[in-house]
This record gives sequence, structure tokens and C-alpha cells, in this order.
Amino acid sequence: MSLIVIGSLAFDTIETPYGRRERIIGGSCTYFSLAASFFTQPKIVGVVGKDFPVEMISLLENRGIDVQGLKIASGKTFHWEGHYGNDPNQRSTIRTELNVFKDFRPQLPPDYQTADLVFLANIDPDLQEDILFQVKKPKLVAMDTMNLWIQSKPQPLLKVLAKVDIFFANEEEIRMLTEEPNLIKAGKMILSKGPILVVIKKGEHGALVLGKDFIFVVLAHPCEEVIDPTGAGDSFAGGFMGYLDKVKSFKESEIRKAAVFGSVLASFTIEDFGMERLKSLSFKEIEKRYLQFKKLVSF
Amino acid sequence: MSLIVIGSLAFDTIETPYGRRERIIGGSCTYFSLAASFFTQPKIVGVVGKDFPVEMISLLENRGIDVQGLKIASGKTFHWEGHYGNDPNQRSTIRTELNVFKDFRPQLPPDYQTADLVFLANIDPDLQEDILFQVKKPKLVAMDTMNLWIQSKPQPLLKVLAKVDIFFANEEEIRMLTEEPNLIKAGKMILSKGPILVVIKKGEHGALVLGKDFIFVVLAHPCEEVIDPTGAGDSFAGGFMGYLDKVKSFKESEIRKAAVFGSVLASFTIEDFGMERLKSLSFKEIEKRYLQFKKLVSF
Repeated sequence: MSLIVIGSLAFDTIETPYGRRERIIGGSCTYFSLAASFFTQPKIVGVVGKDFPVEMISLLENRGIDVQGLKIASGKTFHWEGHYGNDPNQRSTIRTELNVFKDFRPQLPPDYQTADLVFLANIDPDLQEDILFQVKKPKLVAMDTMNLWIQSKPQPLLKVLAKVDIFFANEEEIRMLTEEPNLIKAGKMILSKGPILVVIKKGEHGALVLGKDFIFVVLAHPCEEVIDPTGAGDSFAGGFMGYLDKVKSFKESEIRKAAVFGSVLASFTIEDFGMERLKSLSFKEIEKRYLQFKKLVSF
Repeated sequence: MSLIVIGSLAFDTIETPYGRRERIIGGSCTYFSLAASFFTQPKIVGVVGKDFPVEMISLLENRGIDVQGLKIASGKTFHWEGHYGNDPNQRSTIRTELNVFKDFRPQLPPDYQTADLVFLANIDPDLQEDILFQVKKPKLVAMDTMNLWIQSKPQPLLKVLAKVDIFFANEEEIRMLTEEPNLIKAGKMILSKGPILVVIKKGEHGALVLGKDFIFVVLAHPCEEVIDPTGAGDSFAGGFMGYLDKVKSFKESEIRKAAVFGSVLASFTIEDFGMERLKSLSFKEIEKRYLQFKKLVSF
């Protein structure tokens, strides 16, 4: 099968209790595609400015990622600045400079239009809809979002939500969107709006996967040092969707495994700043941690 | 084997988003012993006033609970009032009237002094130490505590901590005690002070069980309606310790099962106000939910 992802490629300035990094590579599309590349060869859709390092694009290509849909525009790359305190689940956005992302209206290359799996990372819901419209007959569509869009564009967001199969959100986002504090109830409300699956990411507490007739709970890897939580959610989705693309099946038993692989990928991402850990990661390490997850919950 | 518990028997006035109850039966000893009574015949140590309903004591006896160590003193029973908002993990104490608990200095009945398992529920650490001193050769001692004692009596608390095998605490308490935000690190700090096991209760996110050489993660049952979170922690400990007393083994595989039974018992407690759900509960229901827990995490 084939998997496309639309999302951001970015410069991130990040401060955590473990240090500060200025303008390192980040972005939802970057984290997602690197994580997914351990299972399949994702195709990315995004835009960067002339200031984006060519080596990073080469790195993506070397990992088998299709960059045909990556536009290099004149102007500056998207820049996000965020701080984390002692609770890695809480972050404050200091600055968001959309730059080249502001006027980004992508046209999908022809062989992207026949993709089987689509991941609409956290971007403007109008842009998510626009992309989805260009894919002919996707078998499985997933989306992510963030509080910014829930507050500023609830109607366009709900329009996209009704068309997707999987909705990824964190605890705070799903509570905000549904105005329901109980996560199971909130998840069921989302299921009634279209999706067949809701994945509620809970940071250090793992994730809840709610289907129409099952619930699966996946852990976060117990971790002593969360160096940089940025990209954990996108890595989760990347591992999840990448695995499904690889196994070409969406049955419950594969969904469960996909969620564990998602959590495994996220657990590596937070071990270092930015992409560093994903860049050095091997599939052997992923498999080893997958087995550790089994042990962690077995009784 | 035999299991004793010292803790409170109380009147609780509770307000949650699901309603308000005035002066219903509560207390750590009550929840713990009822939960443990599904596995073994716990012996309780506590004090109530003349106003405590005789039917409740009969109910405990009918469940096989040994009430020899329960003193009926002249005066009023301990009274606690607490409120919960939408987040069941957050509670505010409105009032605490110690009443007969104030001058409670129990002498253990002779056949309590040879107990194998001891649970020191959340009471004054000086009282915990006093009781522990009266037990001749316990095989396994566990304790719980709360922020009140961490703040007001840190030294006596650490003295008891050094003598116990299992430390039960919730997230907030362990962070407060260790001044370490990361739960794994905080747990390891506790392990270095004496205990061989730390159980960190995380409410709706389940619990972390840290041993010297293993970590086990146990879920909370995904629950749409937390009617009343009071007693969840004590029910967890009751299921946990009751199961260990029953199987007469403290090896890792049994610890894991004990933690799941603890979480199962807690999950029933919160389904109704006070003791109501525990009173109507059957062992068949406990077994059924235990198997659901297996399914929830299997992949």
C-alpha cells in the first residue's frame, strides 16, 4: 500500500528542563514520516523555505521517504518556539511564525493521489480538507489537530472529522472539542461523528484506543528522563500508520499492535532533542522495546 | 496467613458531580477490609464512636472480617467532608473532625500480634509505628499516607517508611515526599529508603508498580462515570494485600496479579457512593473484570 502525510516541516526552538535548542529541525510531517519510515516508505506533502538544510531532505530521502510533494518556496521555513516545565504533558507556545506555510496550497503529485492511507497532521482544517479532496479513493484516513484549530475553526474541523476514519487527539484537545471531561464518553462522542477509531494520547500515561466495539489501552514507556517531548504525538501517529501500511490490514488485532508501535516510537523520540533519537534508531531497538511493552503489562 | 489493617472508620460527607451524600460510612480501614474480604479474612484495628451504626459492624463480621480490634469509644466517629470536581483525581477536603480518633492508642489483641501481613492505612505515622512495633514477626508490611502527614510529620513518616516492604502513594504524594516530578525516579528514591516495592496510584491512569528489578504497569478500568472516587486507593490496597494473603506468596508474578486485583476492586468502588458497590459485589464480577483487564492490554 502507500501512505501520504501532509504536515509541517519546521524550525523549532525548544526549552525543557534539560536544556535549550535554537532552530533545530522539527515539524509534524518530519516526525511522522521518520517514524513511519521504519515500516514503510511514506510520501510527504509540505513546504519549507530556502533556509531549510538540504542535508535534512537528503536524510529523509535516504530513509526511503518520497519527497516529491515537498515544495521549496522562497521565504523562510515555519518556526515554532515552545517551553516545557517539569510536567512534560504541559507545554507553552512562545511563538509561531507560519512563514512559507501561510500561503501553502499544495497540489498532490499524480502518484500521491492514489494513496491508500492518508495522515492529515495538525494543520489548518481547510487545508486538510483540500488535500483529502485530492486523494481519489483512500482506504484509511487519519487526522490530528490542536487547540488552536478547535478554538478558531471548529466548523471546518468538524467537517473534516466527519470524513476521516481515525481521529488522533490528546486529552486536552478531545476534552476541549467535546466539552466532556470523561475521556471514554468524549471518545464515544467523536465516534458518533464519523470516525471508526479514536486515539486519545495521554503523554506519560499512554493512550486510549477506542473502536466501535473495543477499547485498548496502550502504555507509555516508563521513562526517567523526558529530554524533549516535542514530536511524541506525531511519532506515535507515524509508527501507528506506518505499521498499518506495512501489514495492509486494519483489523482489531493489527490496530492494537499499531498502537503499541506508535507508543514505542514516541518513547524513543522523547529521549533526545528534536529528531536526534529517531535518526540513530534501529528497527532492532524498536522490536526490543515492543517486547518490553508486552512484559510491562503481562500478568 | 493472616492480614491486619489499621486505619479509619468514618462518616464521610461527599459531593461529586453526581450528587451529595451526608455522613455515609467511609474510612480507609472500612474500604480496605471490605475489598480484602473477597480474598481473605482481614482483622481490623480502629475506633468508632457510639454514633456508628451497629449494622455496619455486623456487615463487616458477616463478610468474615475480624472486628476484635475495633474499639467503640464514647464520643463521635471520625468525620471527613470532601468535594470532587470534574477531574476525579482532584479532591478538596472541606472538613476533618478527628473526634474519637484523636486519642486512639490501640493495643493489638493477642492473635493480631502474630499477623503475617500488615497494612498501615493512612493515619498519623506515630500511630503507624506504634502498631507495627506490636506485631511480632510480620512477613510483609505495607503502608499508605497522605499529604497532611508528608507536610506535618515528615520525619516520623520516613522512620516508618524505612521499616515497611511496600509503600502505597498517589502521584501527588510521592512527588511531594521526594520532591521529584518524574514518577520512576521518585519511585526509585523510595526504594532506596527501605521498601522493596512502591505502588504509585494514578487514579484514572492506573498504577505503576516498581520493584527492585521490575516495573509493572496496571490500568484503571476505563470508566464512563466516576460516581464517587472516595476509597479507590484503599480498595486498591485491600484487593492487593488480600490477594497476597490468600496466595501466600510475594513473588513477582503474584505481585502483578495482586496489582490487577487491586485495580479491579478500585474500579468497582468508584461506581457508586461510599461502600454501596462493594457491598453488592460478587467474586464472579471481580473475576470477570480481571479477565477484561487482560483483554484491554493484550496485543
